[in-house]
Formats: sequence, C-alpha cells, structure tokens
Amino acid sequence: MNIPSTMRAVVLTGHGGPEVLEFRDDCPVPEPGPDQVLIKVGACGMNNTDVNTRSGWYSKTVTGATSGDALPKVDDEDPSWGGAPISFPRIQGADAVGTVVALGADANPSLLGKRVMVDCWLRDWNDPLNKDKTGYFGSECDGGFAEYAVAHHRNLGVIESPLSDAELATFSCSYSTAEGMLSRANVGKDDTVLVTGASGGVGSALIQLAHRRGARVVCLASEAKHADLAKLSPAAILPRSPGNLKAALQQSIGQSTVSVVADIVGGTYFPTLIDALERGGRYTCSGAIAGPIVELDLRTLYLRDLTFTGSTVLPPHIFKDLVGYITRGELRPMLAATYPLSDFHNAQAAFIYKAHTGNIVVVP
Amino acid sequence: MNIPSTMRAVVLTGHGGPEVLEFRDDCPVPEPGPDQVLIKVGACGMNNTDVNTRSGWYSKTVTGATSGDALPKVDDEDPSWGGAPISFPRIQGADAVGTVVALGADANPSLLGKRVMVDCWLRDWNDPLNKDKTGYFGSECDGGFAEYAVAHHRNLGVIESPLSDAELATFSCSYSTAEGMLSRANVGKDDTVLVTGASGGVGSALIQLAHRRGARVVCLASEAKHADLAKLSPAAILPRSPGNLKAALQQSIGQSTVSVVADIVGGTYFPTLIDALERGGRYTCSGAIAGPIVELDLRTLYLRDLTFTGSTVLPPHIFKDLVGYITRGELRPMLAATYPLSDFHNAQAAFIYKAHTGNIVVVP
Repeated sequence: MNIPSTMRAVVLTGHGGPEVLEFRDDCPVPEPGPDQVLIKVGACGMNNTDVNTRSGWYSKTVTGATSGDALPKVDDEDPSWGGAPISFPRIQGADAVGTVVALGADANPSLLGKRVMVDCWLRDWNDPLNKDKTGYFGSECDGGFAEYAVAHHRNLGVIESPLSDAELATFSCSYSTAEGMLSRANVGKDDTVLVTGASGGVGSALIQLAHRRGARVVCLASEAKHADLAKLSPAAILPRSPGNLKAALQQSIGQSTVSVVADIVGGTYFPTLIDALERGGRYTCSGAIAGPIVELDLRTLYLRDLTFTGSTVLPPHIFKDLVGYITRGELRPMLAATYPLSDFHNAQAAFIYKAHTGNIVVVP
Repeated sequence: MNIPSTMRAVVLTGHGGPEVLEFRDDCPVPEPGPDQVLIKVGACGMNNTDVNTRSGWYSKTVTGATSGDALPKVDDEDPSWGGAPISFPRIQGADAVGTVVALGADANPSLLGKRVMVDCWLRDWNDPLNKDKTGYFGSECDGGFAEYAVAHHRNLGVIESPLSDAELATFSCSYSTAEGMLSRANVGKDDTVLVTGASGGVGSALIQLAHRRGARVVCLASEAKHADLAKLSPAAILPRSPGNLKAALQQSIGQSTVSVVADIVGGTYFPTLIDALERGGRYTCSGAIAGPIVELDLRTLYLRDLTFTGSTVLPPHIFKDLVGYITRGELRPMLAATYPLSDFHNAQAAFIYKAHTGNIVVVP
C-alpha cells in the first residue's frame, strides 16, 4: 500500500480558544512502533474531552459552561484530566475508526486490512489493570483528527458491522464512558435511571446501554431534542431542568424518586438531582458540562445512604463488551452530522453549540 | 421486682435550644408491649444525633457548626433525620445499657435479668432489611435518658463483659455508626484511612474498628486531644485541619494520599479531604458536624474514579458484629466523663463543647 509521508491533520498548539487548533496539510505520517499499527482514519468522533483539554478546563476552577473560550488564563504546563500536563503540538481525537494499513514488527499480523475501532484507554499492557498507568488516545498521544494515526495493536477492536465508519465513530468514547458509569453504579433491571444531558453522545449512550441492562430510563433534555430522543423509547422525557423535579417524575412515571442518576452535566442543578434519589440511591458521574463546582448537602448523602461513583479510567473489559454490543447490532448509532476534517472549526463550533442530538463526526 | 409507676427522665418538648430539654421526676414508667421488654437503664451515652434532633439540624440549611443553639427557626413539624417529623414530648438517648426487669407477653423469656445493650435501629421485624421501615431509638420512640425504657426484644444485644454499664454505653451508636461507615467503604488491610474528628465517639470508634480490619489509620484532631488519641496507636496524628494536608501526610506516613477518608466533620475542609484521595479512593460519611453544605468539584469525583458512600441505616448484622467485638474484648471504651441524669444540661453542654476525647455518658 502506498503510504504518503505527509498528511492533513488538526493540530492543538497549546491551551486556549479555537485559535490554538490549526488545520495543516504537511504533518508527517506517523510510523508505527514495534507494538503498533498504522490506521488510515475513516472517521473520528468529537467529544467534550477534546474541548476540555484544549481550554484547560481540567485544571481550573470554572463554574460556567464548557464553552472552552472564556476561561481564566491557562498555562500549557497545567495538568490535564489525569493530573499531568500534556505535550504540544498534539493531534486530538479519541474516537478513531479506520483500516489497519501497516504493522510494527511485533504487532499481530492478522490485523492488517481489518476495520478497527480504537480503545481510547492507553494502558501499560504489562500491567493493564493499573489505573495509574493509563493515558487517553488524542490526549497523552496523538489521536484521530488526521488522515493517519498509530495505536498499540492491543488497543483495537476489530469491527464487523454494516455500519459506516462515521456511524462507528460515534461509539468508542461516549459509549464506553456511559457503560463505565452504569457499570460503576451496578445498574440492573430493577433500576430507574435518570439521565441528564440526554441528547449528547454520552447521554444517548446511557439511554441505550441502560435499556440493554433492563433498566427503566427517564431523560432530561431541552425540548428541541425531545422528538429525536423519543426514537430511543425512554419511559419519560422531561425538560432539561424541571423546577420541581420530584413532581415531574411523579407525574411522568408514577414515583417521585429514582434509584440512579447518571449525570454528565453537574452545575447548579446538581442538588436537585441528588434530592431525587431514593434511600440507597446511586449517583454516577463522568462529566460536568454545566460546571464542576457544585453544592453538596452531606446530610442528603449520609442520611439517605447514597453512593456516588465517579468514572473515568475504565477496566479493559468495558471496551471489549462494547465491541460485542456493536457487532451484534444491539446499539443504534446517533450520527448527528459529518464534517470534513478541513472544516474542523465549524464542526467544533457546532459540537459546542449543542443543537444536535447524538454525535458529530469528522472525516479526513 | 418492684417497679415504680413514675420515673426521672429528660424530656424533649420541641425543637429548639437547651431550654426545650426538661428534667422531670414524674414521668410514667413505660409498660412493655407484647414484643417488648422493660429495661432498667444503667447508663446512656450522648451522641450528636441527640443535639441535631433537638436543634432541627436535619431539616435546615445551616453551614456553621452544630452548636444546636443558633439555628434558623425550626417548626416542630419539620422533618428529622429520616424525612418525617418526630412527635413530642420525646425522651431521647440512643445508647441505653441496662438490665431487663420485665417482659411483654411474647418477649423472649431468657432475657429477664440479662444485661443488655440496645440496637439503636428500630426495624419492622417482619421485613428487617427494609431501610424505609426503620426508626431510631430515642428519636422515633422514647430512648434511654430515663430510669426505664422499653425496647423490642429483638433489638437487644446480651452483653457478658467486665466493662461497666457506663463504659458499655459509649459503644452502640458511635461504634455501629463507625462500623457501618467502614463496611460501606469496604475497608480492609491494604487501606490507609484518614479519620476526621478523631477524638469524638465515632472518631475513636473509627480508629479502633479500622485497626480491627487491619488498615492503617491517620487521624485529624485538635492538638489538645493528641495525647489521648495516641493511646489508640494510630500511624499518625495530625492537627484538625492542616493547611497543606498532602504535605502533612507525606511527612507523617510517606505518601501524600490515602485510600479512604472516613468523615463526620464536613464543612469547609471537605474539598481538602477529597483532594487527598488517591485514584479509586473512597469517601465515607455519617455526619457533618462542621456544616453539611460543602463545595464539591465533580472533576475530582469523576476524573479520579472516586466513590462516596453515605451511611445511616445499618443492616442488622452490624450491631450483632459489634456485640461480638465487645464481648470478645476487642474494643476499648473511651469513657470521657459520667454525669448524673439530673445534671443533663451540663452534660450536653460539655458534649457540645467537645473538650473531651471519647464519649460522655449519663447515669439515671
């Protein structure tokens, strides 16, 4: 196969606003190391983590929304999601889907020519369960906002599916994040799960994956998204932040509390969410797009025997499970829009504006 | 046995300051119902929950300490710990220890004459695992701040021990609360547990019970209590709220983070506690004496894969386990002072002032 020496890519040059993202057509095509493969990227999904990393959101005290553009000054040496700074320039993009076109010397040869999805979680494969030895694809190494990317040969899921690359690129980050949250909260068939931010990538993943577990789902989303969300058949769809959540629950599902809240929004609505948990209820979280600093009443946590679980670094089985669900056709992709990589700034603007339901994907 | 018809007791007449607690010598001695026994109280320990219930702390937004005396106006119909109001007049006192002197018709006859400790958790014994059908001794029914009290015959632990009634009365509420916290956080021999408010009843219980599980313990307490706490041999004793907790941990135990925080203090120090948790760490809570409304950074919760557990209503095995530890001599009572019941106001003032280490007990 004829592999060029340069490629098009979107390069993050430091923390900051959109101006630190540069579209280039002269980036070197990476060479796979001994344990790696070279992937010709077919599509790469967008995620909040790209914006958070760019803006420096992981390190700063911000209470507003993740606009990514109005943060206090961030130094390029400030820590990212994992507590350590990332290095620049960096190609972001966690959700790469493509075809393996070259192999490192020690990589599994059966991968050549296969369509693959990248497991976002980089691991030390000599110590794969050690959560302190992890990185994120497109954060601690270059990712998929490019024509080519390299990945460890064990960090891949081979996909056999009628879905397109763009459809597949909606899954990896969002759905493994969502499955990790539900796994941490041990969601099962007796649960009623309240999903916030239900129209986003993780939100729509939470609905589908909670249904897979037999749970009942109630969604919170802005009214403009209700028709789209209805296609996923949740038990009830409520406005984004009902003034009286318990009354809204009572009216829509016949009970004023839920057993699980799966939240990626946070912000000022957090106390209302917690107050809607029944005794012994669980709050599970992997994001805080409306603001990370929230007010917690410890009395509610302890007097009601609640459990809160945060979920970021996932055990390896989550991705493998997800690949199984996809190849068995158990999940429905929510592809909101596709943009060419050269139009990346418009793609990210649309992603941040959040008029879409599901996920936005860029295609090199 | 000659049982009088009236007795001395401290009666809570409504929510409010100390003035709503009245010492009386003409209260009727309660008659045991069919499933109950009558206990001649030998001693009854004091707990924060008594003060919280009196002041109405469970229902109001307060950010200061639990002084019990400077709260916003509380109605007697306001909800207590379990979300429902309690009824007045009420005899408080969870930690009753005494001797069974009379039996209801259906009570276990082998209890007569036995020394017993009361399990604070009232249950529906037809559905004992149902946490929604629970009450607290001295809150949803009359408790032990009296010469006599009645309790369900299944709510008792028979104690064979060389310890005095006053020593035994330091255990039930504090130690079952502490054991419930450690159980919820699944504390084991590989853990390092940071205990806040370590000089109080629950705090000193947490130290001993975490040691029982093989864990390493670091305490936070005011300097005046360090000599007393040293008798319990924690790995390190730090000031109540070190300005740089991670540095203090590094210096004292050679690592800057812990795997578990067991907290009954909350307040403005909460974010510092959470920030000292390692990836995958657990925060377990059953009180918030420095103020329940705290600031939580959801990024710390989710990016570090933390788990928070609140603990209030305990499964029945916790009390049974505790009785076993006591009868086997595995726990050391921390009896700070004994007051006569008639001097209750001074006893509660001393309890709230918190110059003591361990627990304060009243004796009828």
